[in-house]
Amino acid sequence: MMQKIRIGIVGYGNLGKGAELAVKHNPDMELVAVFSRRHLTETNSGVPAVFLADVANYREKVDVMLLCGGSATDLVEQGPQLAALFNTVDSFDTHAKIPGYFATMDQVAKEAGTVATISVGWDPGLFSLNRLLAGAVLPQGTDYTFWGKGVSQGHSDALRHVPGVKEAKQYTIPREAIVSAVRSGQNPASSSAESHIRDCYVVAQPGADLAAIETKIKTMPHYFAGYETHVTFLSEEEFQANHTGIPHGGVVLRSGKTSPAVGHVIEFGLKLDSNPEFTSSVLVAYARATYRLAQHKFTGACTVFDIPFAWLSPKSGEELRRELL
Amino acid sequence: MMQKIRIGIVGYGNLGKGAELAVKHNPDMELVAVFSRRHLTETNSGVPAVFLADVANYREKVDVMLLCGGSATDLVEQGPQLAALFNTVDSFDTHAKIPGYFATMDQVAKEAGTVATISVGWDPGLFSLNRLLAGAVLPQGTDYTFWGKGVSQGHSDALRHVPGVKEAKQYTIPREAIVSAVRSGQNPASSSAESHIRDCYVVAQPGADLAAIETKIKTMPHYFAGYETHVTFLSEEEFQANHTGIPHGGVVLRSGKTSPAVGHVIEFGLKLDSNPEFTSSVLVAYARATYRLAQHKFTGACTVFDIPFAWLSPKSGEELRRELL
Ligand SMILES: NC(=O)c1ccc[n+]([C@@H]2O[C@H](COP(=O)([O-])OP(=O)(O)OC[C@H]3O[C@@H](n4cnc5c(N)ncnc54)[C@H](OP(=O)(O)O)[C@@H]3O)[C@@H](O)[C@H]2O)c1
Ligand SMILES: NC(=O)c1ccc[n+]([C@@H]2O[C@H](COP(=O)([O-])OP(=O)(O)OC[C@H]3O[C@@H](n4cnc5c(N)ncnc54)[C@H](OP(=O)(O)O)[C@@H]3O)[C@@H](O)[C@H]2O)c1
Repeated sequence: MMQKIRIGIVGYGNLGKGAELAVKHNPDMELVAVFSRRHLTETNSGVPAVFLADVANYREKVDVMLLCGGSATDLVEQGPQLAALFNTVDSFDTHAKIPGYFATMDQVAKEAGTVATISVGWDPGLFSLNRLLAGAVLPQGTDYTFWGKGVSQGHSDALRHVPGVKEAKQYTIPREAIVSAVRSGQNPASSSAESHIRDCYVVAQPGADLAAIETKIKTMPHYFAGYETHVTFLSEEEFQANHTGIPHGGVVLRSGKTSPAVGHVIEFGLKLDSNPEFTSSVLVAYARATYRLAQHKFTGACTVFDIPFAWLSPKSGEELRRELL
Repeated sequence: MMQKIRIGIVGYGNLGKGAELAVKHNPDMELVAVFSRRHLTETNSGVPAVFLADVANYREKVDVMLLCGGSATDLVEQGPQLAALFNTVDSFDTHAKIPGYFATMDQVAKEAGTVATISVGWDPGLFSLNRLLAGAVLPQGTDYTFWGKGVSQGHSDALRHVPGVKEAKQYTIPREAIVSAVRSGQNPASSSAESHIRDCYVVAQPGADLAAIETKIKTMPHYFAGYETHVTFLSEEEFQANHTGIPHGGVVLRSGKTSPAVGHVIEFGLKLDSNPEFTSSVLVAYARATYRLAQHKFTGACTVFDIPFAWLSPKSGEELRRELL
């Protein structure tokens, strides 16, 4: 048996706990420790919980660090700090800031002699890969992305800030008629608001004015105004019973032509019972590729676009060609 | 403007004609010539048609040669001959022979200092990529491939060999109930015969015994016996009006779990009005990657598994990160 790839996890939220599960499904890897800014007393799997300030002690003990902090505030700080010490994989998803984050991580990683694989997950991540592939194969065409059915954390947070709301969850649902139109080769012009429905489940504070809450939600700019929005009030018990999961998914489609009457549709879709468990499984597969990049003396930042799929798999090139091609 | 990638096409059948169209959609490429074993007088696009025996004269004039011959007999001969002279991309799809073909092409290309990208297309090709990706992300899971709705050339040929048959086409159709079961996270155990319907459209010779033809088809071993097979007889006019296209497509799914009650489904699907026009569009995208591999001094054989997606696109890494990630 070859030496296992030694994995560390930084940040013990949804993604960090998902990564802890995902490493177990990969016999060529072992989890060394979970690093947190909090003083955790234990982890679900029993691996040591280490205070993040002590992470530098693990330089020789961890091959790839999975950065599982939030994109908004954690990764912009932790990314460069950790890329200076370790090979890293993260799921940075603040779209507009990706070029800047890439540049910073690239510089830090090149100086440190490490590999920093950024923006891994499903969107950005697997969805991005499919946009690239479909665009390269069908240069003449139109891209579509539909999200859901799934929980939008940002919209759920927005609901919880409405006065009178105790607990809430928002599901984004693609409009089936538009998805079907794209699948059948039509090219409907439609905005995100026309393509998605926002379905809200709200537990109100006792005595709250439900009509006022509903109006406040449906007219909230940026989040709900302009969208077909449904609001359902329910009891705390019903909420706990049916709305604590974090499912998500969606589809990326490209509809294109190779000659005037000859069209094609390329579709990639995900149906995920748990957004963080799936996302962290993608991180773990890219940890394997990151390890191999480091072994090949690559240094600097890279993205899913730069990594051949062969490096994601524990199988040899020969096995892959025989079994999967 | 940078120097364009100079493309040659070997073999002027369905795929060769599709490649001729596809190159036009890629402004960073130009088509130099079509090479054929036949003495062709002209091509659809007006590029020169060159007798294949003269191909060596084009060594300095073509950057990447697209090998569009048939897998059964053409590529096994032409592949090694042409890889000794040019960087090549082919769509070799005789599954059981891929390891041997890879080894031969690898040796020839390494000796000649060329790149040979083999087995490019949609299956093998894009479907294979998705099997690899999904398996790496969800190590605990089951793969499914459904083909169709589309024309099976092999089964159509088999129909045409039945006595009394003048013209015929066979469509492979996936059984929707099984595809839906997989999509909903169930893991139905089902053979190819259980998952697909074979739909045959047959023009009979005048006076032929239709019942006998139908029985002969439905009991044909390897091809139709064991499958739900439908046979429809039609006139030559109806056949010409409705059954001359070569549509195809299908879906690759992986259904897997990350914890006991948490499942996910990854799906990649194609709906193609023309199998050869789409397949050759994939070849052309991989010609760009093959050109870049050659520029980076790589030599030998490779497959879609070995090529990062960034190399398929004419865009720079920076553009790709900004626009598609
Ligand atoms: N690319 C994609 O497809 C994709 C998909 C999903 C998510 N993401 C990204 O993943 C990021 C992380 O998502 P997440 O769901 O894991 O976020 P999260 O649960 O909020 O965790 C983020 C961080 O918050 C801290 N934390 C967690 N639980 C805490 C608690 N009870 N008290 C105090 N602090 C706590 C943890 O750091 P410490 O342990 O250090 O305190 C953790 O690393 C998101 O921001 C998003 O950018 C990307
Ligand atoms: N990987 C994938 O997803 C995928 C998908 C589809 C197909 N394929 C592969 O592509 C291969 C080629 O498919 P195809 O549909 O292009 O086959 P095709 O039309 O039969 O052409 C094969 C060769 O036959 C010769 N030819 C064509 N028309 C002819 C004619 N009228 N008379 C005499 N010779 C003729 C041509 O060579 P000359 O010009 O030299 O005579 C041509 O290169 C298939 O064998 C299959 O292996 C792969």
